[in-house]
Amino acid sequence: MSHAKTRMSIFCFFLLLAFDVSLHAQNSSSTDPIESAVLNAINPLSIEQYLYDLTKEPHHAGSKGARAVAEYVQRHLKESGFDSKLVEYHVLLPYPLEVKVTMLEPMERELSLKEQVDFHPDALLPFNAYSPSGDVTADLVYANFGFSDDFKKLKEMNVDVKGKIVIARYGKGYRGLKVRDASEAGAIGMILYSDPIDDGYVAGDMFPKGRMRPWDAVQRGSIRYSESYAGDPLTPGVPAKKNAKRIKIEEDPDMPKIPCVPMSYGEAQHLLKALEGPTVPRDWQGGLPFTYHVGPGPTKVRLQLKMDFQIRPIWNNIAEMKGSDEPEKKVILGGHRDAWIFGAQDPNSGTAVLLETARVLGEQAKKGWRPKRTIVIAQWDAEEFGLIGSTEWGEEFKEDLRKNAIAYVNFDGTVSGPSFGAAGVPLLDGFLQDITKSVTMPRKDVSVFASWWHDQNREKLKGEDISIPENATTSVGRLGGGSDHVVFLNHIGMPAMGFGFGGPNGVYHSYYDNFEWMSKHGDPGFVYHATAAKLAALTAIRLSSAMILPFSVASYPDEILRQLDSIEKRNAHLANNPAFSQLRQKSQQWKSEATRLDSLLLPKAWIPRNQQISTNNLRRLNNLLISIERLFAVERGLPGREWYKHRVVVASGYESVGLPGISRALEVGDSKNTEAEIQLFDQILDQAISATSKAISLLP
Amino acid sequence: MSHAKTRMSIFCFFLLLAFDVSLHAQNSSSTDPIESAVLNAINPLSIEQYLYDLTKEPHHAGSKGARAVAEYVQRHLKESGFDSKLVEYHVLLPYPLEVKVTMLEPMERELSLKEQVDFHPDALLPFNAYSPSGDVTADLVYANFGFSDDFKKLKEMNVDVKGKIVIARYGKGYRGLKVRDASEAGAIGMILYSDPIDDGYVAGDMFPKGRMRPWDAVQRGSIRYSESYAGDPLTPGVPAKKNAKRIKIEEDPDMPKIPCVPMSYGEAQHLLKALEGPTVPRDWQGGLPFTYHVGPGPTKVRLQLKMDFQIRPIWNNIAEMKGSDEPEKKVILGGHRDAWIFGAQDPNSGTAVLLETARVLGEQAKKGWRPKRTIVIAQWDAEEFGLIGSTEWGEEFKEDLRKNAIAYVNFDGTVSGPSFGAAGVPLLDGFLQDITKSVTMPRKDVSVFASWWHDQNREKLKGEDISIPENATTSVGRLGGGSDHVVFLNHIGMPAMGFGFGGPNGVYHSYYDNFEWMSKHGDPGFVYHATAAKLAALTAIRLSSAMILPFSVASYPDEILRQLDSIEKRNAHLANNPAFSQLRQKSQQWKSEATRLDSLLLPKAWIPRNQQISTNNLRRLNNLLISIERLFAVERGLPGREWYKHRVVVASGYESVGLPGISRALEVGDSKNTEAEIQLFDQILDQAISATSKAISLLP
Repeated sequence: MSHAKTRMSIFCFFLLLAFDVSLHAQNSSSTDPIESAVLNAINPLSIEQYLYDLTKEPHHAGSKGARAVAEYVQRHLKESGFDSKLVEYHVLLPYPLEVKVTMLEPMERELSLKEQVDFHPDALLPFNAYSPSGDVTADLVYANFGFSDDFKKLKEMNVDVKGKIVIARYGKGYRGLKVRDASEAGAIGMILYSDPIDDGYVAGDMFPKGRMRPWDAVQRGSIRYSESYAGDPLTPGVPAKKNAKRIKIEEDPDMPKIPCVPMSYGEAQHLLKALEGPTVPRDWQGGLPFTYHVGPGPTKVRLQLKMDFQIRPIWNNIAEMKGSDEPEKKVILGGHRDAWIFGAQDPNSGTAVLLETARVLGEQAKKGWRPKRTIVIAQWDAEEFGLIGSTEWGEEFKEDLRKNAIAYVNFDGTVSGPSFGAAGVPLLDGFLQDITKSVTMPRKDVSVFASWWHDQNREKLKGEDISIPENATTSVGRLGGGSDHVVFLNHIGMPAMGFGFGGPNGVYHSYYDNFEWMSKHGDPGFVYHATAAKLAALTAIRLSSAMILPFSVASYPDEILRQLDSIEKRNAHLANNPAFSQLRQKSQQWKSEATRLDSLLLPKAWIPRNQQISTNNLRRLNNLLISIERLFAVERGLPGREWYKHRVVVASGYESVGLPGISRALEVGDSKNTEAEIQLFDQILDQAISATSKAISLLP
Repeated sequence: MSHAKTRMSIFCFFLLLAFDVSLHAQNSSSTDPIESAVLNAINPLSIEQYLYDLTKEPHHAGSKGARAVAEYVQRHLKESGFDSKLVEYHVLLPYPLEVKVTMLEPMERELSLKEQVDFHPDALLPFNAYSPSGDVTADLVYANFGFSDDFKKLKEMNVDVKGKIVIARYGKGYRGLKVRDASEAGAIGMILYSDPIDDGYVAGDMFPKGRMRPWDAVQRGSIRYSESYAGDPLTPGVPAKKNAKRIKIEEDPDMPKIPCVPMSYGEAQHLLKALEGPTVPRDWQGGLPFTYHVGPGPTKVRLQLKMDFQIRPIWNNIAEMKGSDEPEKKVILGGHRDAWIFGAQDPNSGTAVLLETARVLGEQAKKGWRPKRTIVIAQWDAEEFGLIGSTEWGEEFKEDLRKNAIAYVNFDGTVSGPSFGAAGVPLLDGFLQDITKSVTMPRKDVSVFASWWHDQNREKLKGEDISIPENATTSVGRLGGGSDHVVFLNHIGMPAMGFGFGGPNGVYHSYYDNFEWMSKHGDPGFVYHATAAKLAALTAIRLSSAMILPFSVASYPDEILRQLDSIEKRNAHLANNPAFSQLRQKSQQWKSEATRLDSLLLPKAWIPRNQQISTNNLRRLNNLLISIERLFAVERGLPGREWYKHRVVVASGYESVGLPGISRALEVGDSKNTEAEIQLFDQILDQAISATSKAISLLP
């Protein structure tokens, strides 16, 4: 999916930076021979070829194209010297058999629901995955973005959506939650369309001339709510092996209840133009050339959907390069491989980057290099349907991962333009700044870090002094939902991060997210792909081979303190709650301990310099560092969303929600859970402080 | 024109309000029998009939329709008992003979330049008045709103407009200044079009369904710059009598130098859609259904304009109801009568309101009532071409007006919707709040004042407490350009104000500003017209018959202090300029004096209560009050714009510029003029303080 929205944190990590600037001082791209060799070996032409091969045929999960691409990836990972295998699961994947939308009033017109191209016979019809089958006829209502506040506004306007079909534009959040909100408001069907004001001609030239969405491009996508759990709908919490015990579809609380179909603006305009009723509020007006009205009617439509729900096989690629010192410890670089159609940007820019990363690491391995810990390169299947391949695998190897995984780094829609962006857990904030300082930005004589910093400070600078302050830091986003990090971060409690190069993108989930779009607009010359591969290679090398794990511990209490502030701002009464106030004190306490730890690691970061630490103590230290993220993923999951275990972050659609246990209990006014969650978090902080102190005690 | 933009002042007139709340305590609509009778006599049906009659035929200045409407107005003013005459001038009015725009590249197409209706044979073709004739062919460049900052932006984008034809959208300011800026940037021709994002379908439903501009509606309008002087281009400063001495057209520095033609978006889309070159900055993108590009080309156009410049006769209606006590003193209620076509909103909603005002005042006069001072009701001709009728009359009677005029109240495009708005000189701030408290808002059980206040505070209130604080005040806008107050305020120095009821308006200066638009959308039932007539009648009665003129003197130094702050903000070095600092001190000094005057007037406002003032002292007091505005209009006009004499306010296009003598000299870095203007303003403040002190000394 890759549409992961990140909440950018604006705090500057001063302490952290002091730490990580010199963390790899002996290991920069220019000095470390392995890193230099790897960076020099990365070849844009190789990546271009990978992407060309990967995107030739449609390869949605479960298709023969998907199998062919899985085997292609498999072959290349093996050639690079990785121990690679295909891991199969059997999961519920609906395919569309018939999708038909007919406008009945004020005039009859059957709408065209797919792109106006020589449509590939293997491509699925545009559809919303997990929409039920159905045949509904009703007056139409326009509901802006289709979220609950839009339905509230419609109510204020005395427009009743009960028994109506709702048309809403894509954007502002996850489409599945739109369908949930529409059905909760009483709608009996839904049409999701792309408005030109959001990613079409208003935003820029349309493909093929430009990057943006043309009149006929349809955004496909899953609409399962994913609030209860990610992955295969029928096997929550357990791997979807062939003979796994399955629930019934009706038992999945996240299954959409009304038929829903996606549409291009070229077709939606006919429906919208004919609507009457009140004129829309000014900010609901889209980019089509008429005044929008909310209805209901006179536009009357009939939706006819026949879906084929089947349990189908999917295949993850799992490729390992064994570590020399601690082979059981794993650094995982993964991303999905399945696409809605050709998936040049989403997801296969990430696949191509990882294949190149594997190739250049393999070259070094062939010359005798070995990482200290195991590097895993994964390519997930069926992400588009609901993060399925990654989730089933994570569920299968949960115990091992909890114990041994260092971090998960996600590559999904890694390249669509020239702007660097990153999101991750606070523990990796420093690491992200570190690797971006070691790689040069294409077409600019500065580091990726400098370009990233400049993007974030452009408004403040106003063309004045653009030199970067010595202790400058960039803001790292926090991870929401919508991609394969979810099982690893939210279910298992592994540190996770992702990065990429973005730009305006109007072909998302359409037929036009293809090789032509990428080579003409997304990344001509594949230079940003190559840069992403350099960052990926450094990530793999440094996380796998650093003596001490390059985690920035003090960033964690910093983030928690920000979240506590944000919660107190929304809940003024907490100022008088001693249990809540204690969370802040303990976070402060952790922060001082963690700052001390970071500063002790600083002078002996990459290889202990002054005094050697015993191998035993080094392992204990790294295990303590690994344990920190795990503390927040409590086996007793979030109330009502038990599969999601992490207490500092959870996704709601694409959004990232901070301290979800406490904030959700406060939101719904559940004082018992509020108290319990505060108490739980208090205990976690105690454990974090204790782990940090223990780590300090191991350092000379 | 009526498009006068007003700079809303946000300061609250506390002192003032204390003054004016009780100023007419004995004279509210419910207690004064004349006022009650007048308010009750106002009849929406009568106004509707006037408007229907006035807007039946096209009546642009100099046409036979204009003559017919002048005679209609004349007849009705006479019937109402006013001494009414037609005053003729002979002025330069260009008419279009041929207006042709052909797209030559990338395909040939002749554009349709008038509305797609059964076009009235007497209506002029859409054109921009004072555009020269010309025949130019060039590549096209899109320049957003067509102002100098847009041309600066184009330069940054390496787009050269030299030798090109520029297309710009209407909006953000006066069209004449767009043509000036385009020709200064080197363009050889210009097309001004209405973009749907500004007043077309993006803003709301198109006429006839709604209020907004349909695909074929063209905004006509004058493009003479009007920076040097208003009125007839050939007789600056003197009345355009038949045998007046005239300058040559080439001697008018404000005459546009490149051919310019207005266009609908239905036609402009063909030109814009074909443009290539850089994509526009996001905020230049309009509402047409494609991505805008700036060009130049490949769109190539040919403009062919043949204009017929002739000296033609125009006629003002001047109608007087003689005052009983001081017949030489005049309160003038005026507005223009000429329209680009039918002019239902602009201007004849104002004409209909004034005819009704005259009718109800006349009814009282027939029963024996007389105002203390003379009431003049005026209907100006040729305002659309450049405020010509009012300017020539003002220039003819300048000496008398300087001596005897109480105030000028303007009625232009008085009604186009339900939202009250007002602008005027600070002296009338209190009066505007006073009259609006005496009249009830249609369809609401509150005063016009309460509705006005609520509109201005809606955002702050957020639906919470909507009761109005006891000492609440509203912000009164300041007068810019674009309507007939200019000669009276800026050239002669009379207190001036205007008010009206507005709403979204997409038929401005088009064929569709007609009776149907007004009765369907602008003011169904003509209730806002009736309310405007009530306010007009109260204005006429109170300004003509108040014992002491209801001027709020302290508002003036308040406004000046705001302007001084604003200038110092733009020119930090002034903080060290003792002459400039002295202006602030003197304004403060005037403010204390004026506050004292206002407070002394307060208990004896409408009719002196405690102690009678002698008739002689009353006249001296009123003459002192009249003199205050005159002080600011210094015979030596503004440097480079000598016709404009007022030192507190001047128009630049529609905008109001504060303390123009000082601020302009600072802007161009002319230190000699800066010094001279500061010194001049210092002297004016001395005189204002002295006049205020004298006024105080006349009060017991």
